[in-house]
Amino acid sequence: MNAMINRQVIVDNLPAGLPEASNFRMENGEIPVCGEGQFLARCLYISVDPYMVGRLKVSSAAYTAGVEPGDVMQCYTVSEIIESKHADYKVGDKVYGSYNMQDYAIGDGSEVIVRVDTDLLPLEAWQGLMGMAGQTAYWGLETIGQPKEGETVLVSAAVGSVGSLVGQIAKARGARVVGITSSADKCKQALETFGYDAAITYRDTDGRAFTPTELTAKIKEACPDGIDVYFDNTGGDISEAAWPLYNLRARIIICGRIAVSHLKPGEPDIGLRDQGFMIASRIRKEGFLVFDHWHKAAEAVGPLAALVKEGKLNYQTDVMEGIENAPLAFERMLRGHNVGKQIVKVA
Amino acid sequence: MNAMINRQVIVDNLPAGLPEASNFRMENGEIPVCGEGQFLARCLYISVDPYMVGRLKVSSAAYTAGVEPGDVMQCYTVSEIIESKHADYKVGDKVYGSYNMQDYAIGDGSEVIVRVDTDLLPLEAWQGLMGMAGQTAYWGLETIGQPKEGETVLVSAAVGSVGSLVGQIAKARGARVVGITSSADKCKQALETFGYDAAITYRDTDGRAFTPTELTAKIKEACPDGIDVYFDNTGGDISEAAWPLYNLRARIIICGRIAVSHLKPGEPDIGLRDQGFMIASRIRKEGFLVFDHWHKAAEAVGPLAALVKEGKLNYQTDVMEGIENAPLAFERMLRGHNVGKQIVKVA
Repeated sequence: MNAMINRQVIVDNLPAGLPEASNFRMENGEIPVCGEGQFLARCLYISVDPYMVGRLKVSSAAYTAGVEPGDVMQCYTVSEIIESKHADYKVGDKVYGSYNMQDYAIGDGSEVIVRVDTDLLPLEAWQGLMGMAGQTAYWGLETIGQPKEGETVLVSAAVGSVGSLVGQIAKARGARVVGITSSADKCKQALETFGYDAAITYRDTDGRAFTPTELTAKIKEACPDGIDVYFDNTGGDISEAAWPLYNLRARIIICGRIAVSHLKPGEPDIGLRDQGFMIASRIRKEGFLVFDHWHKAAEAVGPLAALVKEGKLNYQTDVMEGIENAPLAFERMLRGHNVGKQIVKVA
Repeated sequence: MNAMINRQVIVDNLPAGLPEASNFRMENGEIPVCGEGQFLARCLYISVDPYMVGRLKVSSAAYTAGVEPGDVMQCYTVSEIIESKHADYKVGDKVYGSYNMQDYAIGDGSEVIVRVDTDLLPLEAWQGLMGMAGQTAYWGLETIGQPKEGETVLVSAAVGSVGSLVGQIAKARGARVVGITSSADKCKQALETFGYDAAITYRDTDGRAFTPTELTAKIKEACPDGIDVYFDNTGGDISEAAWPLYNLRARIIICGRIAVSHLKPGEPDIGLRDQGFMIASRIRKEGFLVFDHWHKAAEAVGPLAALVKEGKLNYQTDVMEGIENAPLAFERMLRGHNVGKQIVKVA
């Protein structure tokens, strides 16, 4: 334990395209002092998630305040309270919250998303399954997707940290789940580890992306009864290919746009307009951000833990060691090289 | 009264682009015979509406069965029952329903949308205000738009049969209403006749369509507090221009696509993808078809008539005389040459 050093991941420069490790540098900061009504939290695990790309953008449609060069990089962590002057938190308590990429941070409880209960699930599960990924999957399905028994749920980035949970939660509700992934290996994982009923790739074995028409044909084969819910983690051409296949009153959760992350700020995302399909099938499409649901995050803990206990929910974590590797873990996750939820073990 | 002749508007040939009068011909058909549980309805007024374009398409995303050459053209009418063997309908009753473009049709009540009550509003109002246009405006706002007091509601095709009612209903609910139209004259009408708080055109006085960027700037000026509800009657570039201006949790009613009616069957509608905006502002967008709401059409009659009585709802009808002119009235409406709801007086 580096008791006297507060290692911090600092934003060195803003990325032109997709962020990489070279956008960050390490610094040693002060150990912050805990005042009345506050506690000192020590980081155990860092979570790296796609939303962090938006934090590193100057303008564009950023939905929260971003970071600037010189700032500590924002992130969620699982942290342990090592000193407390707060009535509701005692030393030894563990929390999941926004403490950013550093060894030590001050909290006052307002930044806590959920309290970590390792009797319910092991420590690692609180970063992905109980954290951003699981809450996104759970509330996206609960509030927008609402899959019914026998319906078909299509999931893009199907074995990603969010997608892998979406498929299993929807399946536990009686839906038929179909995944879209980037490779045959990931399809295998979708079927064998995450219980998808069918899985397809959006590109051929040579890495050539299928045209929307080709992809539509592949999705149609995997979804013979059409699509009732689409959990859209990618945007771009992949989403476009699904349009002709929606059933009456289908629901679309717009959750991510990783497929168009190559676009520069201000560069328009051009593709197929959807109004014709939306009217014909009275489709509902809604933008989703998990931050809107943080206040009820504790409600999802019970149902998610129950699914794990019933053997209906597998989750995987991909652990990298050392806070200094957090930028690399972030880069890796953005390029889809992780297997399971990418986290970083700090202490 | 041509008692012995059943004049019918027959589909002569399917249009390649936007339908015109030459796609139809007149024929004299048989007077149908009224059986038990049925009634004979005589057409008084024909309504011509944009959805009828979809009825004339062979393939594409048509949402109901279409017509073929040789068929009587589909439409809604206000008709009077002149013979009845049905317990619930008596001679002299007037109904709004799907009796198609002909003098006489048989009904059994299943095709009745609402019963016409001329004590409440005059006959002409039951075709537009109480019919498809009014029901579309009412239920689109009721089920998807849900404007709240002080919110900004943007309406495209703002003085059209639907748009002109949307603006007034939303305004009666306390919203600020802004209209988009095709000409300075229509803007004037939007402000003076239909009570819009602001109105803009989507093209300049020489008829050149503004670019999305130019139009965005114009909408922004008219909507200084952003957009909370967009009643989208046009699709195309006009809709695209609104994307940067949505407020958090805005609602979009996808009701029509007249701006892209030049597209041939199968020709893709290409434009700006909206996923980025939808996530950033957690926008809800939903396809709307009034047919889903016909079963509760009678519920809207009271509230709409009340608004008229309170002087909060102006409606206009543009009446053409003679069933033989129904194709021309249809052509005229599709080209936006009507002033108020286009109907045809038949008897």
